[in-house]
Amino acid sequence: MNAPRIGPSDSALVAAVARLGRQAKAAATMVRNASPEQRTAGLNAMAAALEAHAETILSANEQDVAQARTEGLKEAFIDRLALSPERLRGVVGAVREAAASPDPVGTVLADWTRPNGLRIQRVRTPLGVIGVIFESRPNVAADAAALCLRAGNASILRGGSDSARSTAAIVAACRQGLAAAGLPQDVAQVVPHTDRAAVGMMLQGLEGAIDVIVPRGGRSLVQRVQEEARVPVFAHLEGLCHTYLHASADPTKALAITLNAKMRRVSVCGATETLLIDRSAAEVLLPPIARALQDKGCALRGGPEAVRLFPMAAATAEDWRTEYLAPILSIQIVDGIEEAMAHIAFYGSGHTDAIVAEDPAAIEAFLNTVDSAIVIANASTQFADGGEFGFGGEIGIATGKMHARGPVGAEQLTTFKYKLLGSGQIRP
Amino acid sequence: MNAPRIGPSDSALVAAVARLGRQAKAAATMVRNASPEQRTAGLNAMAAALEAHAETILSANEQDVAQARTEGLKEAFIDRLALSPERLRGVVGAVREAAASPDPVGTVLADWTRPNGLRIQRVRTPLGVIGVIFESRPNVAADAAALCLRAGNASILRGGSDSARSTAAIVAACRQGLAAAGLPQDVAQVVPHTDRAAVGMMLQGLEGAIDVIVPRGGRSLVQRVQEEARVPVFAHLEGLCHTYLHASADPTKALAITLNAKMRRVSVCGATETLLIDRSAAEVLLPPIARALQDKGCALRGGPEAVRLFPMAAATAEDWRTEYLAPILSIQIVDGIEEAMAHIAFYGSGHTDAIVAEDPAAIEAFLNTVDSAIVIANASTQFADGGEFGFGGEIGIATGKMHARGPVGAEQLTTFKYKLLGSGQIRP
Repeated sequence: MNAPRIGPSDSALVAAVARLGRQAKAAATMVRNASPEQRTAGLNAMAAALEAHAETILSANEQDVAQARTEGLKEAFIDRLALSPERLRGVVGAVREAAASPDPVGTVLADWTRPNGLRIQRVRTPLGVIGVIFESRPNVAADAAALCLRAGNASILRGGSDSARSTAAIVAACRQGLAAAGLPQDVAQVVPHTDRAAVGMMLQGLEGAIDVIVPRGGRSLVQRVQEEARVPVFAHLEGLCHTYLHASADPTKALAITLNAKMRRVSVCGATETLLIDRSAAEVLLPPIARALQDKGCALRGGPEAVRLFPMAAATAEDWRTEYLAPILSIQIVDGIEEAMAHIAFYGSGHTDAIVAEDPAAIEAFLNTVDSAIVIANASTQFADGGEFGFGGEIGIATGKMHARGPVGAEQLTTFKYKLLGSGQIRP
Repeated sequence: MNAPRIGPSDSALVAAVARLGRQAKAAATMVRNASPEQRTAGLNAMAAALEAHAETILSANEQDVAQARTEGLKEAFIDRLALSPERLRGVVGAVREAAASPDPVGTVLADWTRPNGLRIQRVRTPLGVIGVIFESRPNVAADAAALCLRAGNASILRGGSDSARSTAAIVAACRQGLAAAGLPQDVAQVVPHTDRAAVGMMLQGLEGAIDVIVPRGGRSLVQRVQEEARVPVFAHLEGLCHTYLHASADPTKALAITLNAKMRRVSVCGATETLLIDRSAAEVLLPPIARALQDKGCALRGGPEAVRLFPMAAATAEDWRTEYLAPILSIQIVDGIEEAMAHIAFYGSGHTDAIVAEDPAAIEAFLNTVDSAIVIANASTQFADGGEFGFGGEIGIATGKMHARGPVGAEQLTTFKYKLLGSGQIRP
């Protein structure tokens, strides 16, 4: 992820990586002008090629896993790296899902006619070239290439060096599929893993070739990409999500939603990290929820009032700004919805925040005022997921306000242009 | 426009400009949560205050103009700088137009329900804080502040030092109007013109306060902003627009459209700079158009074939990449639509390009394939304008593909969020 200065001795590398950019641009033009049916055929052919080359991919992955074990990497890391026949079927299924989902290119977003008879259409078009920088999960290569192609884009993929063989085998299969469907192979390209400087070049945009960078991985990867990139980035640095129990909350819903929001999977970005409870209802709501969470193995860290209502560790100032991604929950008692929303505005990450309430005015105020990508009433924050939105795949969740916000699906990988249909109009 | 390093001796400036950012953020939160009616009232009060303070504004402007004359600035510059009672009425009218145009905030862009009953709405929300950097035209201050407010945003305005008194007087009036309507004055703030380093700070985003920068001015301003900004920029560097006459073009339309596209106003970004003509129709189309252009005072520079068909200067390679913004037109004969589109892809700036044709297949191919913000069939490129689109004002035209593309009106100064309306859903 470092971006060392490129010296004269690196000229061969510079030329090779710059060539990736030019090839991607040329491929992007062709795939943009292809028909939706051709893009669908390309996706189906990619899926078929991944199936046909399953053995090669799995054996490349075995080598990556063996090397990771030799190097003493942690089991959690190896679990992310390892492919099984079943996981590979999941990869193929995701590509088929992209093939089955609607092609966004050419969709007319608006269509109006001016008094002078000039008809104006706003039409979805592909973004161009998407740079994807990911870590150990090799399946990201196929997922990302497929979603980019669905939206008419070319992709330049850069995986972690520990999964280099797996990624190379997956992308090779994808490229064979593209060729079989009559699309340019360079719609999906992989950056040779040995070129560390290549990431720096990608973040500079490869001489204008890359339109947007999507980092897929942990906080340190995302942070470096956000700091160094000279092209737009679709990402979220963290998901410091809140669930707020309003005084009007239904206790049964509050219990079920809080347990799910925290404990369904603790390592996802939509997991709740802080629970806020209205003071007037805390005595009723907190103890059963706290007990149930503890029973499921969740450690609790409370503000002074929460500690008085249920035995738990005392939270420090740091807890309110910590994305645990672990079975730990911080709990704060608040003096009503204004204080809850102020807490979220101050400590939140603009990712996903939920209210549990029966009072429609409280729900409306929360949903309108909280300025996060996803705001939820009476459901689990773990619904922050492109699949759960019905997007047919996502490449990540963005918390920036520019262009893509929330789950980034195929639609969010497009831009638009205006078509003006005249009959000889000139401007007075 | 330079961004000198800020040393310890500038700490007072740093503190003052950083304060502008914090104040804008606080004002943005309030104006975002205001009702559409409150924003409309704010705009009408701004217009009324500009009218009430007309004398102060005009007298401040007289001082700016007097100083500009003393400093020997060019008449064209002074013309951009000078306000008259009539021009000021135009400024007031633009603010009233913003008040009368629909409030984009809260518009539901999509609304669907998932199989689990979870209802998902995609809703327009303000971007936050817009930084506007402009040159001599003081009316930009009112235009921009009004458009930003219409979309629920706060603005930080930085005009050229030569129009400092005018800009300060205009923004002071706007702020009085905001206060009269019960909105925070800091919805519109002006950066003291004496702080050159302030522009550099704005381009760094004022510690996260500025969400997007809009430069309004000449090429050198836009280029510096694009190069130095660490926040997104809505802009176009140049409008190198083409009009392409297809073999099937109606000669009467071709003549009228070309004359208008080049000569209606030569200094606007939507003015055509290069005319492309199909070889098979050039003998018929070119001579009358060339004659009419020359009669209107337009200098012609042709490729070898154009020169043979009509007496004109020979174009050099530089001509195809030059945005003249002057009564000069370069003319190239092409071998059909593919060559025309290749010329546009290579030399164009992605701003606005038009085809004149009667053949529907040629029109479709051109509109689909040319990857510019605005593509036009059978009308003048000078329709590239937010007002002509019916946007009720624009803050500029963007050629970037991210977020805003084409004319930037109030809608393009918004983002969106997702509202999830549940009834207790938890994620399996």
